[in-house]
Amino acid sequence: MMGLLDYFKTNKSSSASIAKERLQILVAHERSVRGQPSYLPQLQKELLEVIRKYIDVDQDAITVNFEQDEDRETLELNIVVPDNPTKHT
Amino acid sequence: MMGLLDYFKTNKSSSASIAKERLQILVAHERSVRGQPSYLPQLQKELLEVIRKYIDVDQDAITVNFEQDEDRETLELNIVVPDNPTKHT
Repeated sequence: MMGLLDYFKTNKSSSASIAKERLQILVAHERSVRGQPSYLPQLQKELLEVIRKYIDVDQDAITVNFEQDEDRETLELNIVVPDNPTKHT
Repeated sequence: MMGLLDYFKTNKSSSASIAKERLQILVAHERSVRGQPSYLPQLQKELLEVIRKYIDVDQDAITVNFEQDEDRETLELNIVVPDNPTKHT
């Protein structure tokens, strides 16, 4: 079975040409008991707070994708880190 | 191109039979500038602190995988959430 890290590797070429700094976070929650309230939306807020300690990102630079089905929820955060301004001078 | 959420979906069957509650977190950091110090190991600690607010997990229940190559780092956290004890009585 392909591991998740292999997935990241096989999808490398598409982004290498752009050479933007990016941070991608994925959270998958498999639930054994249905009907529990989800904590992922709240978790998402806290994760972003943690990330903001390390990188300076606008809300605009963050794409969020949240999906939910019977027994699994997934949260995907894609963050494009602003270019270092000194690189353009 | 297969999206990351599709990846989670296609790998669903393997875990459905076990029906454990699991939380998986992936962080991929593509760096535009090489040689910067990595903040992922520190970020990992903080992410786990946030997660512990929501679920009660032992250090044993957490598998961490950190990989680094030229322009990408990936951090994978796999957490098996302990069964609710009331389920076994």
